[in-house]
Amino acid sequence: MHFKVILRILGILLMIFSITQIPPMLVSLYYNDGAVHAFAIAFAITLLIGFIIWLPVFNVRQDLRTRDGFLITVLFWSVLAAAGSLPLQLSQSPHLSFTDAIFESLSGLTTTGATVMTGLDTLPKSLLYYRQQLQWFGGMGIIVLAVAILPMLGIGGMQLYRAETPGPVKDSKLTPRITETAKALWYIYLSLTVACALGYWAAGMSMFDAIGHSFSTVAIGGFSTHDESMAYFDSPLIEAICVFFMVVSGVNFGLHFFAWRQRTLLHYLKDPEFKFYLMLLVSITAFAFVSLVATATFDPLESLRKASFMVVSIATTTGFTTSDFSHWPSMLPFLLFVAAFAGGCAGSTGGGMKVIRILLILKQGHREILRLIHPNAIIPVKLGKRPIGDNVLEAVWGFFSVYLIVFVIMLIGLLATGLDQVTAWSAVGATLNNLGPGLGGVALHYGDLNATAKWILCLAMLLGRLEVFTLLVLLSPAFWRR
Amino acid sequence: MHFKVILRILGILLMIFSITQIPPMLVSLYYNDGAVHAFAIAFAITLLIGFIIWLPVFNVRQDLRTRDGFLITVLFWSVLAAAGSLPLQLSQSPHLSFTDAIFESLSGLTTTGATVMTGLDTLPKSLLYYRQQLQWFGGMGIIVLAVAILPMLGIGGMQLYRAETPGPVKDSKLTPRITETAKALWYIYLSLTVACALGYWAAGMSMFDAIGHSFSTVAIGGFSTHDESMAYFDSPLIEAICVFFMVVSGVNFGLHFFAWRQRTLLHYLKDPEFKFYLMLLVSITAFAFVSLVATATFDPLESLRKASFMVVSIATTTGFTTSDFSHWPSMLPFLLFVAAFAGGCAGSTGGGMKVIRILLILKQGHREILRLIHPNAIIPVKLGKRPIGDNVLEAVWGFFSVYLIVFVIMLIGLLATGLDQVTAWSAVGATLNNLGPGLGGVALHYGDLNATAKWILCLAMLLGRLEVFTLLVLLSPAFWRR
Ligand SMILES: [K+]
Ligand SMILES: [K+]
Repeated sequence: MHFKVILRILGILLMIFSITQIPPMLVSLYYNDGAVHAFAIAFAITLLIGFIIWLPVFNVRQDLRTRDGFLITVLFWSVLAAAGSLPLQLSQSPHLSFTDAIFESLSGLTTTGATVMTGLDTLPKSLLYYRQQLQWFGGMGIIVLAVAILPMLGIGGMQLYRAETPGPVKDSKLTPRITETAKALWYIYLSLTVACALGYWAAGMSMFDAIGHSFSTVAIGGFSTHDESMAYFDSPLIEAICVFFMVVSGVNFGLHFFAWRQRTLLHYLKDPEFKFYLMLLVSITAFAFVSLVATATFDPLESLRKASFMVVSIATTTGFTTSDFSHWPSMLPFLLFVAAFAGGCAGSTGGGMKVIRILLILKQGHREILRLIHPNAIIPVKLGKRPIGDNVLEAVWGFFSVYLIVFVIMLIGLLATGLDQVTAWSAVGATLNNLGPGLGGVALHYGDLNATAKWILCLAMLLGRLEVFTLLVLLSPAFWRR
Repeated sequence: MHFKVILRILGILLMIFSITQIPPMLVSLYYNDGAVHAFAIAFAITLLIGFIIWLPVFNVRQDLRTRDGFLITVLFWSVLAAAGSLPLQLSQSPHLSFTDAIFESLSGLTTTGATVMTGLDTLPKSLLYYRQQLQWFGGMGIIVLAVAILPMLGIGGMQLYRAETPGPVKDSKLTPRITETAKALWYIYLSLTVACALGYWAAGMSMFDAIGHSFSTVAIGGFSTHDESMAYFDSPLIEAICVFFMVVSGVNFGLHFFAWRQRTLLHYLKDPEFKFYLMLLVSITAFAFVSLVATATFDPLESLRKASFMVVSIATTTGFTTSDFSHWPSMLPFLLFVAAFAGGCAGSTGGGMKVIRILLILKQGHREILRLIHPNAIIPVKLGKRPIGDNVLEAVWGFFSVYLIVFVIMLIGLLATGLDQVTAWSAVGATLNNLGPGLGGVALHYGDLNATAKWILCLAMLLGRLEVFTLLVLLSPAFWRR
């Protein structure tokens, strides 16, 4: 482990992150909402701590290796979540407890969008802006993580993307190409955000809401500046724009990168994950639509509107709401929640297990059936025309089962704190999948949970966002040896 | 497919099965409980249908191949469940509907032990005896299935046992050795039952109850002749005997076979699955004991008694009850239920995914972590000192994920019939794992469910007992192609 370089990076990260307190400061000054000191103090503290960490090691130069990547990634989200919680603890009204502030900050940065705050419509504008911004920066980090870092670390089969994506290819050195890749992704991410914000604004949102919601849409975050979330605007046009950008943001940014460099769109339709992703969204929407009409929950037009919005929002793990889907009839709440376990595509800002893994698991399941029928045949698992290696498949299985085991363990933990089963399982699902809203006692917000439960869910958000293994690896003694 | 031989076997099976109506007939005559006609008619119908199926093909002689094994296995349980339901439909009081009779019969034969009947204590003795006997014969079928057939078919990694177990080894022919193996297993099974019955009787049960409960104990079935199940006897000694035989019956009968032939016990302690199985039972019992004491649910002695009995009963998927564990505090009901997903050892009468698969999944999960740390190392997954082949591991993954996918699909189906989430998930879990009692609305019995739900649960029992793939294979077009 190269602790000194890691400290240097951490120091620089914190100093850069301190700058993100300046925009909300300006918002606070503009609206004169009285929260400016919270951001100013947070800015100073973060900058100072970053500087103190950085100073003793500022001229250490060493090549980082793969193994350092795990530690840096985990530290990135946990330390920034701590730093990001400062304004929430420092502000006078609302004043969040340490637990609540960490929960909210981590929920923002991991783009989970689970909130402990209520009465959003009456909060200082700067604080509202800050929450949206946390998601936006978090989303940016996730894109770099998912497109450039996870393939290199080989987490849960993501080595699959090593050759294809523009990320660094060389086995275990973090090459400078990561900077180049990150820059390109940044442009794409920024362009999507601008386009989304303009769309919202043109469709009738205020400039403040348009920017704020574009942040949390493109980040697949789901924070809103209103308690009612997207239902506040009650506009089919805004919802359509939102659906479009949620779907686009749930796609592998490697594909967007390719489109941007090669000026083509055809490759989307050749991507097996993209096709399966669209197929899932369309078929679940169709099913939900039919169910809502059949149960006479809404009239047909309203059913179409609510079904398409909520299915895309939950299945991509965004978590915006236009309807309290936890009270939709019979199996619909559960079905939508299950879709969130699949989540977005790999290399997107979406959460969940990622569509590609579900696709590979179904293909492997099918292969097992064929193997039983033809015990001596050699049957490769293919993605498009490309056969998938055993190592990748084993990593995907490993991911799937460890993901579910972690889910069950956290669920047991939550039940032990006294929650009922529906609240507990949906809370773990909503945080582990970085979705946001749950069912039962967490259908609206997470404010009423006990502190232990909140900390367990913080861990769930982090585990989900770091694709479980990044964090689990750190718990292995073998990682720290030599 | 060799349909004619399959029909011949089916006919013979039905004729043999018709004989099983004679013991309850004798019981009915002995107690003069007025149900004798039900068994007599069922006997005649079953014998006649078996004869009609058998007659046109009685002299067909062909070697069976692996592929026929799938169809025979599925037909075995489904056709016998239909035949087994006859006395329940034919009896006057209680008179079960077609749906209920099939549910009860399948629940017996698959040794699930979920019941739609209440007021057991007032039922005709012969009917009570008949339910217990269904489980006993079902358990016998399961042992042959699990020790001799599944390893040969290679279901879900069970080819692992092909070399070790006494089942037929030659690639795809059903050799006569299956008969020899079945006979040996039969002796073991019978001896365990006799020992268990004598134990119960000596500990104070009536002869009737002792025999009945020994049937459902050794079969890991869980049917009882009393509504209160094992709580009826309120005897620590009976419970201890029950715990012992549940634990023994949850062990791979291949190990018992080896013990019986080689006159040794040492090999148990060398078996990794057996060790993990005991470790799970002991640690979950300890945890439940501590939780019950800590929450002051029972006093310490009572906690130990209830915890050890209920943990063993649920974790081995037997399903006897001495306490309504669905009302135990916080996470305990869920924890016990999760343990049932692991279930018994492979090659036992237990249900669930089987301990060996969970062990292999944990080992593979650990290997994935090591692989992330040492990307270029070759790390085998080992069981004891034996490295496990990729084919076996892939089959285990396939099993695990298909099992869970089937679980989720059936859960969605149950929710669609209007059940609440806790009832629905626990009902699917209790039937798919061949456990029996659930939580919520199915904590006591399944009588109140709607008919659609009952049929879905029938499918779940069958899928669970046939290790999912045996049935899924039949749905694949490739199976029916030459
Ligand atoms: K989200
Ligand atoms: K059972």
